[in-house]
Amino acid sequence: MSRFRLSLSRKSEGIYDCIIVGAGPAGLTSALYLARFNLNVVVVSKDVGGQMALAPLVDDYPGIPGVPGTRLTEMFEEHVKRYGVPMIIGDSVKSISRSSETWCIETEGDKRLCGYTIILATGTVRRRLNVPGEDKFIGRGVSYCAVCDGPFFKERIVAVVGGGDAALTSALYLSTITRKVYLIHRRDAFRAFPFYIEKVKNNPKIELIMNSIVVEIIGEKKVSGVRVRNIISNQERVIETDGVFIEIGSEPPREFLRSIGLELDEMGYVAVNPDMSTNLPGIYACGDVAGGKYKHRFEQIITAAAEGAIAAYSVYKYLLKMKKQ
Amino acid sequence: MSRFRLSLSRKSEGIYDCIIVGAGPAGLTSALYLARFNLNVVVVSKDVGGQMALAPLVDDYPGIPGVPGTRLTEMFEEHVKRYGVPMIIGDSVKSISRSSETWCIETEGDKRLCGYTIILATGTVRRRLNVPGEDKFIGRGVSYCAVCDGPFFKERIVAVVGGGDAALTSALYLSTITRKVYLIHRRDAFRAFPFYIEKVKNNPKIELIMNSIVVEIIGEKKVSGVRVRNIISNQERVIETDGVFIEIGSEPPREFLRSIGLELDEMGYVAVNPDMSTNLPGIYACGDVAGGKYKHRFEQIITAAAEGAIAAYSVYKYLLKMKKQ
Repeated sequence: MSRFRLSLSRKSEGIYDCIIVGAGPAGLTSALYLARFNLNVVVVSKDVGGQMALAPLVDDYPGIPGVPGTRLTEMFEEHVKRYGVPMIIGDSVKSISRSSETWCIETEGDKRLCGYTIILATGTVRRRLNVPGEDKFIGRGVSYCAVCDGPFFKERIVAVVGGGDAALTSALYLSTITRKVYLIHRRDAFRAFPFYIEKVKNNPKIELIMNSIVVEIIGEKKVSGVRVRNIISNQERVIETDGVFIEIGSEPPREFLRSIGLELDEMGYVAVNPDMSTNLPGIYACGDVAGGKYKHRFEQIITAAAEGAIAAYSVYKYLLKMKKQ
Repeated sequence: MSRFRLSLSRKSEGIYDCIIVGAGPAGLTSALYLARFNLNVVVVSKDVGGQMALAPLVDDYPGIPGVPGTRLTEMFEEHVKRYGVPMIIGDSVKSISRSSETWCIETEGDKRLCGYTIILATGTVRRRLNVPGEDKFIGRGVSYCAVCDGPFFKERIVAVVGGGDAALTSALYLSTITRKVYLIHRRDAFRAFPFYIEKVKNNPKIELIMNSIVVEIIGEKKVSGVRVRNIISNQERVIETDGVFIEIGSEPPREFLRSIGLELDEMGYVAVNPDMSTNLPGIYACGDVAGGKYKHRFEQIITAAAEGAIAAYSVYKYLLKMKKQ
């Protein structure tokens, strides 16, 4: 019955060639490629676009200058939909387990789907400050990506919150663009490469605000300042700023990943081989959730998408081999 | 004088932060990212777009469905030009050598440029049949990429030329889309994974034409057939086909790469680390010319572009470190 020559899937039994978990740039690109390989694939995700959809303006996806993240997300989604890939959006995958020759997922919405392969493209969860104003000003001064959004703050004042490598490199990068950078850290010392710490300390544009936490992000239509509390003196003050870059890290969904039986790297990301395969045969990971020693982390739309393409290609080869047996 | 805070470049002395060699998706994306890092960069390339410009229609670059390769090339180029990156097009790099703390290139056009870093994104050279009709019908039936162009041959007849993994996987892939695939190989046996050979032999859609070479590609406005010569009987015949996929390999510019002192992998590609660095400090490689054990080769526009972004990020970090010293 199938128009797919390679496809192993038996639609009557509801078994997919591949189930893609996540619909950010990695998941959507793997869907596009798998559809082009004529495979029977489904996407399951709580939202579409992931981190991409949060970017106020994306100017680093080659060929599409200055596009809002929401629009770029639509463009990816429309491209995938042209190939008729079914997408289950608004539902989250609760568990993944082995069932005979397939992997089966169960969702929060009590759906159960099985496939010969799985591509995990769940992304990570950005740590938030969880302070008043944060949600309100996302895309209007609040950013979680200096490289993405820095160029929009030329000659303006910004604050970076955090004390690790990401915060320090963000502050250094922003100092090349903006007029002034406040670096706000809750401890009395940074936990970062000494090299970065020294550079930050010697940079006349960067003002360090140590032992301090942001308690509120202030503004009318967009950010105009942050209220900062010194945790030693307990005194509060307002710092005027046009942007707040929150760089307190992001986390892979470690417990979910461990429950599947996946091998994780020391940070909790899925340890993938160069072909995006994992320790579990038939399970591939790509995008921000993928890590391990073969990957140089640089979380960009273009890198996530590329990993999605590679994962799809690997699934194709895996199924080709499986069909033979 | 410089508006670049990080930039090490001294314009008066003509030293760039980075010289990018090549202007395909990898080179153009690294230019985009380096410009976003506020670095003083120049692109040198014999053409713009590389392999991308040769694709009749690209439908695998996420977000931009069904675009001619020439148009997608323009879109990449326009994006880079928005950042004012200077590009020297129509000239080729002849040599790269170390000169004190910089790397200097010399071009066929007798230009000499020096930079603290180099990104090599030269791509590879596709092996051509060098038969009448080949050049004429590129994009009109002649293709060098089954994954790229296969979907345009739905339910039609195609020929694949070659006998390695690339040719066999192309034939297998095309058999899932087209009505019939001729696989034309000059030897009496394939040099490919036994697994692929068996699959090809058992595939009813694929007809093997062994011990045979293509001596001419025939057609009026587009391909209508190939003239094939059996090299044992010396007899010629014409096979009707709508498409010819030439999969006789591509080659890295090995001698050029060796002359620089770069470590190559067993195939002659530049051995890169996950961050696209090479054995030579300050020289990075990305796109089709990059290889090595950390890379899963899947030569797509999206993967080349992602490597270009990673190479740019690594150059940025290298310069940050260099500036300190």
